Amino acid sequence: MRNIDEDTITQAVLATLAGCKDDRLRTVMTSLVQHLHSFAREVHLTEAEWTQAIGFLTEVGHITDDKRQEFILLSDVLGLSTLVTAQNNAKPAGCTEATVFGPFFVENAPEYRNGDDIANGAVGLPCFVSGSVRGLGGEPIAHARMDVWQADEEGFYDVQLPSTDGQAEHRARGHLRTAEDGGYHFKSILAEPYPIPHDGPVGRMLDALGRHPWRPAHLHFMIQAPGYETLITHVFREGSDYLDSDAVFGVRSTLVADWVHHASGPAPDGTCPEGGFYALQYDFVLNPLAGG
Amino acid sequence: MRNIDEDTITQAVLATLAGCKDDRLRTVMTSLVQHLHSFAREVHLTEAEWTQAIGFLTEVGHITDDKRQEFILLSDVLGLSTLVTAQNNAKPAGCTEATVFGPFFVENAPEYRNGDDIANGAVGLPCFVSGSVRGLGGEPIAHARMDVWQADEEGFYDVQLPSTDGQAEHRARGHLRTAEDGGYHFKSILAEPYPIPHDGPVGRMLDALGRHPWRPAHLHFMIQAPGYETLITHVFREGSDYLDSDAVFGVRSTLVADWVHHASGPAPDGTCPEGGFYALQYDFVLNPLAGG
Ligand SMILES: [Fe+2]
Ligand SMILES: [Fe+2]
Repeated sequence: MRNIDEDTITQAVLATLAGCKDDRLRTVMTSLVQHLHSFAREVHLTEAEWTQAIGFLTEVGHITDDKRQEFILLSDVLGLSTLVTAQNNAKPAGCTEATVFGPFFVENAPEYRNGDDIANGAVGLPCFVSGSVRGLGGEPIAHARMDVWQADEEGFYDVQLPSTDGQAEHRARGHLRTAEDGGYHFKSILAEPYPIPHDGPVGRMLDALGRHPWRPAHLHFMIQAPGYETLITHVFREGSDYLDSDAVFGVRSTLVADWVHHASGPAPDGTCPEGGFYALQYDFVLNPLAGG
Repeated sequence: MRNIDEDTITQAVLATLAGCKDDRLRTVMTSLVQHLHSFAREVHLTEAEWTQAIGFLTEVGHITDDKRQEFILLSDVLGLSTLVTAQNNAKPAGCTEATVFGPFFVENAPEYRNGDDIANGAVGLPCFVSGSVRGLGGEPIAHARMDVWQADEEGFYDVQLPSTDGQAEHRARGHLRTAEDGGYHFKSILAEPYPIPHDGPVGRMLDALGRHPWRPAHLHFMIQAPGYETLITHVFREGSDYLDSDAVFGVRSTLVADWVHHASGPAPDGTCPEGGFYALQYDFVLNPLAGG
C-alpha cells in the first residue's frame, strides 16, 4: 500500500472492497473499478484528458436540475440506456418491446379520460391515438394506467419551455386508464423529429464526435397494470427522418407504426380540423408477471 | 439501427464515431464505450441500479462547486487518479515521485518569501520545513515556483472552512520561490491525518463499501521551473496513521519522511515555541524536460 504504481493500483482498490457487507454492491464496484482502470490503461489516459473529463462531468452535473437530466442524456447517447433497457426487458415473443425511458418523464402528470385532448395547448397538427392494452394471452387489461408524453411540433417537451404564469405547465403529457375492454383513445398532436437538448456539455460532446442530436418522431408510453410487467416504450412514426440514426439508439422495428394522414374530416371526435389530421392505432401487449 | 439489442448496441454506438475527425477523441471514446458496456453486461446492471447511478452522479454534480470538487474525490477513491498520475509520471530513478493532485489546490494562492509563516492563522503545532530543489544532475534550481498546501490540525483545508469577514481566506497555503542555491524554507503547522470530505455522496459510497475516508498526514507540493517537468506530489509524515490504508491510494515510500519533533527551542526562526516544534527537511529532484 506504500508502493502502489500503475500496475498494482487496481488490486489495491479491489482489496479495500473486502469489507463491503453488501455482496451485490461489492460485485458491481469490483467490475466498475476493473473496467474503469482498463479503459484508462488502454488509452493511456493523460492528466490533461483526466482534467477535461472532470470538467465535463462537473458541467453535466451543474446543468442538471429537476427539469433537465443531462446524466440521462449522456447515458442515452453512449448507448448505456439502451443496453440496460434491453438486458432487463427480454420478453416473450408477442409482447410489446421496451425502449429507453429518456429524460422527459414527469411524475404526477394530469389525469385525462379517454377521448380527452392531452395536448392542452401544445402546438401541432391534431393526432388521434387509439388502440388496446392486452396481456400475452390476448386478455384485455381494464383500468391499466397509461402515461403518455411527447414533444410539440417545435421539438420541445413542456418541461423545456419557460414557465408562463397562468398557463398550464403540463402540455402533451398526461395519464389515462384503459376502458373495461382494454381500449384507450385520446387526442394529441403529431409528433415530429426533434434534437435532444444540445446546448449543454452532451451536445458539445456529440458535436466533437461528429454526431447529430436528432431523434425520429415518437410518442412515449409507460403502461402499468397489476399482475403485469410495467412497459416503458415509444411508438415511432413510419417514414420519419432519423429512424435509422436515432441519437439515443431507441428504435425497434416492431415499435414503428403508420401514422395515417387524413387530408380532411371528420376526425374521430366529430370535428373537421383545417389541414386534416393524423390517426395512429397501436395495440400494446404486456408481459404477465411470473406467478401473477 | 432499427433492431438494436443488448448484443448489437455496442457496435451501433461505435459506428456513430466513424465521423469523428479527432483521432485521439475517437480512440478514447471507442475504448470508453466498450468498457462501459462490458461493465454493464458483466454485472447485468439492473434498471434500478442504473437509476441509482444517475441519482448518485447528479448528487456528485450538485455538491461540486468552486470550493468542493466531488468528482475528483470520486476519481481519487476509485484509484483512477493514482493510475492516471502513475502512468503519466514515469521518471528516471533519482527523481522525486509524483502523487495525486487532490481536490484542494487553489490557483493564485498568496506569495511568500523564504522564512515566512504560511500558516497565516491556521491552527496547529509549528512546523519548519526546509530543503532544496535540484535537477537530476544535482544542479540547484534557482527561482523554482513552489506551491504548498495543507490541512490544519482539525483536518480542514482553508477552502473547507466557512469564510469569515475580515479574516484571510488563504491559510496554510501559498507559493514561494527557491533561492539562488535551490534552497527553500518556510514555517507552517504540523500536518495531521484527516478524512476526505465524507458528508456527501462519495462519503456515503465509502460507508456502503465498508471503507474509511482517512488520509495519512501530508504536505502538498507543486514545483514548477523552466526546463523541468512540473512535479505534483506530497511529503508524508513517517509514523502517521493510515500510511498503509490511504483512502486515495497516494502514498509512495520514497515520499515518507521524518518530521522531527523538538521538545524545546530554539526553533529555526529563533523563537522558542511552547510545546516545542517540528522540523521537516526534504529535498526535491526534478526531471529535466527532453531537449531542455
Ligand atoms: Fe422523446
Ligand atoms: Fe491533502
